Amino acid sequence: MKQVKLGIIGAGRIGKLHAENMRGLPQAQVRAISDLYPDSLHSWADASGLPGVRVSGSYRDILDDAEIEAVLICSPTDTHIDLIKEALQAGKHIFCEKPISFNLRETAQIVELVKAKGLKFQTGFNRRFDHNMSRVQELVRAGRIGEPHLLRITSRDPEPPPESYIASSGGLFIDMAIHDFDLARFMMNSEVVEVYAQGAVLIDPVFAKHDDIDTATISLRFASGALGVIDNSRKAHYYDQRVEVFGSEGCLSIQNDTPNTAELHTAAGVYRDKPLYFFLERYTGAYVRELESFVQAIAGGADVPVSAYDGYQAELIAHAAKLSLRERRPIALQELEVALQQQQ
Amino acid sequence: MKQVKLGIIGAGRIGKLHAENMRGLPQAQVRAISDLYPDSLHSWADASGLPGVRVSGSYRDILDDAEIEAVLICSPTDTHIDLIKEALQAGKHIFCEKPISFNLRETAQIVELVKAKGLKFQTGFNRRFDHNMSRVQELVRAGRIGEPHLLRITSRDPEPPPESYIASSGGLFIDMAIHDFDLARFMMNSEVVEVYAQGAVLIDPVFAKHDDIDTATISLRFASGALGVIDNSRKAHYYDQRVEVFGSEGCLSIQNDTPNTAELHTAAGVYRDKPLYFFLERYTGAYVRELESFVQAIAGGADVPVSAYDGYQAELIAHAAKLSLRERRPIALQELEVALQQQQ
Amino acid sequence: MKQVKLGIIGAGRIGKLHAENMRGLPQAQVRAISDLYPDSLHSWADASGLPGVRVSGSYRDILDDAEIEAVLICSPTDTHIDLIKEALQAGKHIFCEKPISFNLRETAQIVELVKAKGLKFQTGFNRRFDHNMSRVQELVRAGRIGEPHLLRITSRDPEPPPESYIASSGGLFIDMAIHDFDLARFMMNSEVVEVYAQGAVLIDPVFAKHDDIDTATISLRFASGALGVIDNSRKAHYYDQRVEVFGSEGCLSIQNDTPNTAELHTAAGVYRDKPLYFFLERYTGAYVRELESFVQAIAGGADVPVSAYDGYQAELIAHAAKLSLRERRPIALQELEVALQQQQ
Amino acid sequence: MKQVKLGIIGAGRIGKLHAENMRGLPQAQVRAISDLYPDSLHSWADASGLPGVRVSGSYRDILDDAEIEAVLICSPTDTHIDLIKEALQAGKHIFCEKPISFNLRETAQIVELVKAKGLKFQTGFNRRFDHNMSRVQELVRAGRIGEPHLLRITSRDPEPPPESYIASSGGLFIDMAIHDFDLARFMMNSEVVEVYAQGAVLIDPVFAKHDDIDTATISLRFASGALGVIDNSRKAHYYDQRVEVFGSEGCLSIQNDTPNTAELHTAAGVYRDKPLYFFLERYTGAYVRELESFVQAIAGGADVPVSAYDGYQAELIAHAAKLSLRERRPIALQELEVALQQQQ
Repeated sequence: MKQVKLGIIGAGRIGKLHAENMRGLPQAQVRAISDLYPDSLHSWADASGLPGVRVSGSYRDILDDAEIEAVLICSPTDTHIDLIKEALQAGKHIFCEKPISFNLRETAQIVELVKAKGLKFQTGFNRRFDHNMSRVQELVRAGRIGEPHLLRITSRDPEPPPESYIASSGGLFIDMAIHDFDLARFMMNSEVVEVYAQGAVLIDPVFAKHDDIDTATISLRFASGALGVIDNSRKAHYYDQRVEVFGSEGCLSIQNDTPNTAELHTAAGVYRDKPLYFFLERYTGAYVRELESFVQAIAGGADVPVSAYDGYQAELIAHAAKLSLRERRPIALQELEVALQQQQ
Repeated sequence: MKQVKLGIIGAGRIGKLHAENMRGLPQAQVRAISDLYPDSLHSWADASGLPGVRVSGSYRDILDDAEIEAVLICSPTDTHIDLIKEALQAGKHIFCEKPISFNLRETAQIVELVKAKGLKFQTGFNRRFDHNMSRVQELVRAGRIGEPHLLRITSRDPEPPPESYIASSGGLFIDMAIHDFDLARFMMNSEVVEVYAQGAVLIDPVFAKHDDIDTATISLRFASGALGVIDNSRKAHYYDQRVEVFGSEGCLSIQNDTPNTAELHTAAGVYRDKPLYFFLERYTGAYVRELESFVQAIAGGADVPVSAYDGYQAELIAHAAKLSLRERRPIALQELEVALQQQQ
Repeated sequence: MKQVKLGIIGAGRIGKLHAENMRGLPQAQVRAISDLYPDSLHSWADASGLPGVRVSGSYRDILDDAEIEAVLICSPTDTHIDLIKEALQAGKHIFCEKPISFNLRETAQIVELVKAKGLKFQTGFNRRFDHNMSRVQELVRAGRIGEPHLLRITSRDPEPPPESYIASSGGLFIDMAIHDFDLARFMMNSEVVEVYAQGAVLIDPVFAKHDDIDTATISLRFASGALGVIDNSRKAHYYDQRVEVFGSEGCLSIQNDTPNTAELHTAAGVYRDKPLYFFLERYTGAYVRELESFVQAIAGGADVPVSAYDGYQAELIAHAAKLSLRERRPIALQELEVALQQQQ
Repeated sequence: MKQVKLGIIGAGRIGKLHAENMRGLPQAQVRAISDLYPDSLHSWADASGLPGVRVSGSYRDILDDAEIEAVLICSPTDTHIDLIKEALQAGKHIFCEKPISFNLRETAQIVELVKAKGLKFQTGFNRRFDHNMSRVQELVRAGRIGEPHLLRITSRDPEPPPESYIASSGGLFIDMAIHDFDLARFMMNSEVVEVYAQGAVLIDPVFAKHDDIDTATISLRFASGALGVIDNSRKAHYYDQRVEVFGSEGCLSIQNDTPNTAELHTAAGVYRDKPLYFFLERYTGAYVRELESFVQAIAGGADVPVSAYDGYQAELIAHAAKLSLRERRPIALQELEVALQQQQ
């Protein structure tokens, strides 16, 4: 069977995860992985049953490898733009983790560049591939709830990231809620047109120190006329990822996945284990399926399920939320786009 | 056993319900019920096992009855203010359905008047007495989730009221969401300080005709710093009444009550009956408990669990939401109260 | 409205419960209640809002009251037979708590006597009126699971009764599992033809002292060919009452009712309150509905929903289970009936 | 990293599954797979990302390969005994699918032989490795329910196997319920001492044709004094695999796994997808973990988690159930073992 050969740039937690997931995809083959600190990668590759993977300290080794058709960009966000441009230059298809960049104009340019080059570009919004999320979207699309009227997303992390991460994360909206903004567009099949955000620092003052927040609620208005609310927290003690879509004919909702269905009934009450801890546990299957779809798009020539434009739209909403929080008023997305064009 | 003797003014659906519930309260006795259209009440009283209840066409017969210690005001909202004033004048304790009035200043005056008279006044926020709601509030108060950070309320009616009702309802915020505003204060044990509302007409244009909406989301900011979101719809096909309080140590949430726990598993999927249809089914027990607490407050001299001030605060939030929707901006409640004082 | 006038013989927990429930039934009126120890009944009647109820130390006062059409027999089981005979003699309709008697032959005679007198006789199998049980039976009867193949009943008490009760209870099968035997016939709409019982004393040796057991499993075979299993325990710390009917097209099952739907999610896991504690909490509504149906049968002339024959059949299964446990073999019910006839 | 090299004998559905699962186990390597009909295996190995696996038409090629330390026996049951003997002769560790054989005496001999050879032998009871089952057992072992008193197992297949399979399956108890018998010992941590089985043909007469049944209930008595009930069906339209362990301090139970947690609420009721269809979906993870533990036992020298003796005990219970059904009486396992010794 013809295999798609890939390279991975950035061997952090997510880069390694993608490499390991590739073991289970017969149609894909990881040829090389690069990282600024490659030393530990040899033992990892061996222990992970990936002895054949070439390890390198420079992403150039990957871009220069003519056999490699596609690259996964898993390095820090501030390196994305340059890597994407070089990779496109080298004729590689691209899978890029979110966000594409911290700068809306630069992300917009990537959208254009990808179109011009005619190469595949998939943005790493893994939640679309979650068995629960995708089932809800499928049923919404099938009209099972009629016209969508209301969207409710709860998205809470188990615990705050380290301060070093907070400092360079771009803030809660761009780092964390961006997934919810993509989910909102995915579920409602309509663009967001207006955003109003409330934020607070209730968990740890360190967020205030970096002009960030740890708790938020976001109101959304969609082009369809539908409304939505999102609530976020940086500290839920487990990964709380729920969505509900309410429409003219009914309501679709999901619960969190749990490690098991065991329930203990005693005189003191009923107990069960808490939901899965974080994204590595909750989205295990989703990460495999997003890669699978990327590889199939390359092998089969179909469109990627999540485009660069999808990445841009989610960033646009995130920047609007940031502005709304600063100016304490609802922000029409059009206002930002107009400003963007004027900058050019 | 000494019984508290009551009179009911207004024999609509809710007035009759209170009368029937009284049958199960040994410590209470309904002596009389009045309505502008009393004719059908005799047969109803007989069929309901309340043959002893005196039926009248005028509320004065109730206020003039020296034996009656307390009255339940269940007539249309626009009659409340005058009835309350006359009842207080007659020295009766009062249980009044929400809202106390459509006019914030008049409601404020009632709060003062009640204080001056030293009589009991309970506002009919029945949800505080729901077995699910009260259990959540109890656990929040007990500190089981630490400091409350986020509140999520979903409150959706099964179907829109008739147009005649819509025309005089005061609008979604004052007629329907007012329950959610009271619930918000009850759950978070903190006053709401800012409101931002989004509204839409997605179900029936008749709402637009009366300058009303049928779908809404409301963002709340509490004095404690916590945030909240409410979503409302006039047409959910069943009564959707859920609340979630998320805090520093955990999260408390409830599901809708269902008529039974039966589940049917077949090749086509798993099916169960939908939640209870509307407030008469869902809040059956809550209506009994709110009356019980009112009667006990009178008999025992304790405070009523829901005061006139609670009624005022909920109305204040509702008016702020209405203003926010009109002006498309967040409204600080203080802004309204200042305006109120200036009017005086 | 014409009311059915009733008398209650035996003012224990259940007799009082029926009297209090009658307050909520406009079509019924409790005229008198009798008990061997009537002294405390006056204050109870007053406190329960039943001041009009006549209290007596002798059941004869009830049977001699020509105004009373029907009696509820709530006295100890060993008094049932004589009371039933006298009540039938006095021309009263009868509602009798289970079991009708400890002696199968005497119960059989009551079945005949009732038929001869043409009076109503309802056996107190309250579970048939539970909102969950009745919904399952309704759906089974409607063919939603096709042909019933398997029945699973779990029936566990929160804690063992006092030794004095155990000594005169007739044993686990006749005192406790008898409800499950009636439920089995009700759910499967087919008679039980064979029983195999396993028993053990795992909770408290006091059961062995009285030649009783505290834990059991019972295998049933139905005339339809279907199979069933029941498990019982005297100590589950709450009332565990679940049933499942599995058929050719699907499976119907219920969960226990809970005091509320609140769930607490924390780092330690997910917690909710345990199911309702015992029959008074779980079957509140069922007790009201069984009385309602009895009263309606008298007022309207319809058949009672649970007959004396139903009481007999459940006792027959219970005696078979007892024999099976003693002889460690499956018992065909026919074997018992043949023996019964030979005794006569 | 040192890898354990394995060979697979029998490339049916389960043999292939094990091979594919091995891809995800860095510590294991499949060197060869044999089947009587090897032709299609080349394309399967290629498509499955196992191009390196040697394909053969004879199991001897595997037993003769000195590099192979362990074999997985996935061929039809009637070939197990000879294959096990030859594999032990060749010094291979063995993983064998259940049942070890249809003949209790032969299985007993294997238990002895394995002991004598000092090689690892794991019986393929995959359910012990299910995330739900293992969590329940873990909590039972931890004493969370005190002393186990009652066991309830429901085990139902989605649909009957083809007649050809039925004819050579050994019957419901040995083919299907054997998993439940192992689960019973695993959960209760006590040996089964007595069995009583009820059986019926309610789904398809073809079972009667082969002197088999399609529906059953089984009563168990444990050495600890605890009791248990199992119910089985060949046609539940989905895979129904639930277990409940009830003890002195509480009750542990599990629900079936579902493909997602999405719930659709409409005016018609609440709908969700049915549980996972069959063992390949439900026990995906369990199959990986059972292999992992086998490989680790070989690499690390620890004991296998499921021994040949465990296989023997489950078969013993199955044969007792078969005898109970035939003779319509409870069977003490000792009775069978005595008979077994006399045969020798």
